[in-house]
Amino acid sequence: MIEVEMKAKINDKMEALEKIKEIGGTYSHSEKQHDIYFNSSDKDFKKSDEALRIREIPNGEEFKCILTYKGPKLDSKSKTRKEVEVEIDDTDNMTEILVKLGYKPTAIVNKVRRIFKYEEYTITLDKLNQLGYYMEIEYVAEEDSDIEEIRNNIIEVFKKMDITSGFERTSYLGLLEQLE
Amino acid sequence: MIEVEMKAKINDKMEALEKIKEIGGTYSHSEKQHDIYFNSSDKDFKKSDEALRIREIPNGEEFKCILTYKGPKLDSKSKTRKEVEVEIDDTDNMTEILVKLGYKPTAIVNKVRRIFKYEEYTITLDKLNQLGYYMEIEYVAEEDSDIEEIRNNIIEVFKKMDITSGFERTSYLGLLEQLE
Repeated sequence: MIEVEMKAKINDKMEALEKIKEIGGTYSHSEKQHDIYFNSSDKDFKKSDEALRIREIPNGEEFKCILTYKGPKLDSKSKTRKEVEVEIDDTDNMTEILVKLGYKPTAIVNKVRRIFKYEEYTITLDKLNQLGYYMEIEYVAEEDSDIEEIRNNIIEVFKKMDITSGFERTSYLGLLEQLE
Repeated sequence: MIEVEMKAKINDKMEALEKIKEIGGTYSHSEKQHDIYFNSSDKDFKKSDEALRIREIPNGEEFKCILTYKGPKLDSKSKTRKEVEVEIDDTDNMTEILVKLGYKPTAIVNKVRRIFKYEEYTITLDKLNQLGYYMEIEYVAEEDSDIEEIRNNIIEVFKKMDITSGFERTSYLGLLEQLE
């Protein structure tokens, strides 16, 4: 699975929500996402542009927990990456296994994500405490897809909402690290 | 969680089943276990006496899948180890993540396990294609437990069933590798 995604800084949240509605995006649901990022001393994921993450999403009285590996970016313009996910039943035990394998939890990213569906895309409006609002448009593609074409289509969706600047390739993790 | 366990070679399966019954062991259930072991080129788990495993257990039309890390043996007489488990929803995706992190599937162990409860112990009678039958007695202990005492208690349970020899500290994986 390849995740082709682009995100842009949003200055006016209400306007962004209006624009999503105007083009025909339909609200799906909202999630609080608590992300724990891991790094290895053997192989610095910052340098290799990889990521290993446990995401916790409250779901009633339970948590949905997902272990995700993200490969390096596959092109120079978007955030397209190879992504592999596994749902797990216990964050603490998964953390303990990763620590035993030589990984360390190195960063936490918390956000509130509003999720919308538009045609074959997922549009999200994310709120991060220190970073403010961002809009992401994501398309999940097969491994042999034409990424260039998908990326151009995503830019077109942004254009429909009058978003033509503020694009950001750096991950939320990277942006938060720049603030430190 | 510390898993204190000992196993012994069983030559007469029917006699073993009788003995478990005689001491008051109660049958719980049977499982087909399909185990995939991983190793890393950076750190040979054979040398470090660790193990990383995905176990698949058919459960109706589904599979129960568990990722397990086993630490090195903690004493010289039993198979006592630190063990951490996480239930996962997809073996293939977990395998793909482990491969991305530098691990390779290196061995498969298949067995049929009959599981019995006896007091605070789990007794299993395992059938492995190339190895025959083994009985394992396991006790799950807190990290600060007196392992020596627990091991002696396990030996006493074996004694009650007239099993006083044939003890084996080598894992099934190790025993199968010796056959190659």
